[in-house]
Amino acid sequence: MSNNYILRGENAIYYECGFSSDNAIFLSLNKDRYFITDSRYTLEASKAIKDALIIDGGRDLVKKAREFVRKSKIKKLTIDPFEWNIRDFEELKKLKVSFLQKPNLSQKKRIIKSFNEIDILKEAVKKGKLAFRRFEEFFIDEGIGKSEKFLNYSMQNFMRDFGEYELSFEPITAINENSALPHALPTDKKLESNSLLLVDAGLKYKRYCSDRTETFINPKDSFQKKIYDIVLKAHDKAIEAIKEGVKASDIDKVAREVIQRAGYGKYFVHSTGHGVGLDIHELPVISKSSDTILEEGMVFTVEPGIYLENQFGVRIEDMVYIKNGKVEVM
Amino acid sequence: MSNNYILRGENAIYYECGFSSDNAIFLSLNKDRYFITDSRYTLEASKAIKDALIIDGGRDLVKKAREFVRKSKIKKLTIDPFEWNIRDFEELKKLKVSFLQKPNLSQKKRIIKSFNEIDILKEAVKKGKLAFRRFEEFFIDEGIGKSEKFLNYSMQNFMRDFGEYELSFEPITAINENSALPHALPTDKKLESNSLLLVDAGLKYKRYCSDRTETFINPKDSFQKKIYDIVLKAHDKAIEAIKEGVKASDIDKVAREVIQRAGYGKYFVHSTGHGVGLDIHELPVISKSSDTILEEGMVFTVEPGIYLENQFGVRIEDMVYIKNGKVEVM
Repeated sequence: MSNNYILRGENAIYYECGFSSDNAIFLSLNKDRYFITDSRYTLEASKAIKDALIIDGGRDLVKKAREFVRKSKIKKLTIDPFEWNIRDFEELKKLKVSFLQKPNLSQKKRIIKSFNEIDILKEAVKKGKLAFRRFEEFFIDEGIGKSEKFLNYSMQNFMRDFGEYELSFEPITAINENSALPHALPTDKKLESNSLLLVDAGLKYKRYCSDRTETFINPKDSFQKKIYDIVLKAHDKAIEAIKEGVKASDIDKVAREVIQRAGYGKYFVHSTGHGVGLDIHELPVISKSSDTILEEGMVFTVEPGIYLENQFGVRIEDMVYIKNGKVEVM
Repeated sequence: MSNNYILRGENAIYYECGFSSDNAIFLSLNKDRYFITDSRYTLEASKAIKDALIIDGGRDLVKKAREFVRKSKIKKLTIDPFEWNIRDFEELKKLKVSFLQKPNLSQKKRIIKSFNEIDILKEAVKKGKLAFRRFEEFFIDEGIGKSEKFLNYSMQNFMRDFGEYELSFEPITAINENSALPHALPTDKKLESNSLLLVDAGLKYKRYCSDRTETFINPKDSFQKKIYDIVLKAHDKAIEAIKEGVKASDIDKVAREVIQRAGYGKYFVHSTGHGVGLDIHELPVISKSSDTILEEGMVFTVEPGIYLENQFGVRIEDMVYIKNGKVEVM
């Protein structure tokens, strides 16, 4: 990437300078770096950022950014076209420079994690797993009769106890037919002793996300057990296939073929996985149409699922990374 | 607004059809309405939406939207330039129609609330206030020695107990000098018996947001009391000035002048208020540069503050609305 670029995304900016806010622009111009925000954040920014100038951009950060770009006399500025809405870009385009569009500019930089990032992510995953175990004890002991909303609320609390403040996303706690919705919102539906319960939740640790799904089936229900075993096989086979140099699309294929062969291909309605880091969804994408080749230091989920409308859904999700060319489950 | 428009914002879409997702497009073409999403959400959408066709747009919602626009044979399509990133707009522009850009298209429709929306917002505010009272009891009884993080966590729980699942935003619980940061993140700093504590929090009820700030000063600290009284006076005078037909900028002026006359003008670093509804920040903006004239049914915050670096900050925030031409505090 050229040394001259402008970033707007909160996590994109955090990655550059170790601080961010929901209203900020980061500029890298020649050897100079600028963090432009409004007066609500300048004080915190000046405490946290060591290697960029903190600028109060007032009510028009783009205008302030234009001033610094003009002063720098650069000719080319790299932007991420997903970060700019067409209105703000009209304002930025008042600059007499040529714009180089690099989609997912920051996510592409972040696709290979450093050792330090992997350590943080492993710790996040470890904490997330502990929260799942705490939740499992809780719902086995006192979950019967509790609603999806209550279970959700409880899971949030366990996740917060182990994580730091924010969660990666609002958890999913879905019972029976609600678990057939891959992104179910919690309802007043109550857990019974023979219910299936799908839980998808992640916490944040040092701003990095964890992501995990477990499905607790009714062990006496042989059809649930059958579906669970198919998903587990897809999950395990996909993980076995992961190593440096393999196509991400081939990992998706491995998982999908297990489910297709079992006759449930059309009920696996999403891709096999996604990268995780500062964003809960980032690169690489593990899907049919991905053109990524897996590399050392990539971190992503493996999460096949089968969703049977009006019956139930099963998803099993782990986070993995590539170390010394081989897969490691976090 | 023309009958032909396309929306991408989650709340913008919810307002149209009573359902939304984080990956959706809403199309209104002549008399037809389309909700386009991916397969993760189509089942829930079909249960919730009565008056729009549910379309599975697969991995390319914009392409699917183009198909329906072409079939409709319309000539002009209204878009919100803040909702479209330049990459997706490139894709949309493959259509042979002229694009009418209306910034804040949906927020402008939503600036006047219906009776039903106001009832929901009043209920949200009422629940938010109950959570503040519960939190106050809690921190007076057992808050001493607790960290900002712990207090934050507790406030979140109280808000969730009274609200529904999601909060309007992550609360602020800031002690002493941390409260001088208008958007402080919670730290390990501990509450002492003579601490100042600023709490800004909101919950959601039927998807609508509440927003409230209270600052608990040390009553024995006469300087804190002085600053508090200035902010309270700015807050009260601003509310007194609110009625139908007045400029929003004049309300900002009233609050600002009270603080300026007291000699603290430059420490009031943000605008006086903002609209609240499905979004926590929406129209109208109550600021110096706002050109809004206040109208029946508008709902917004009044929240002046004074922020003294390395000392403390005070902010007092209520939500108000205009009913029968006059202001009502929610």
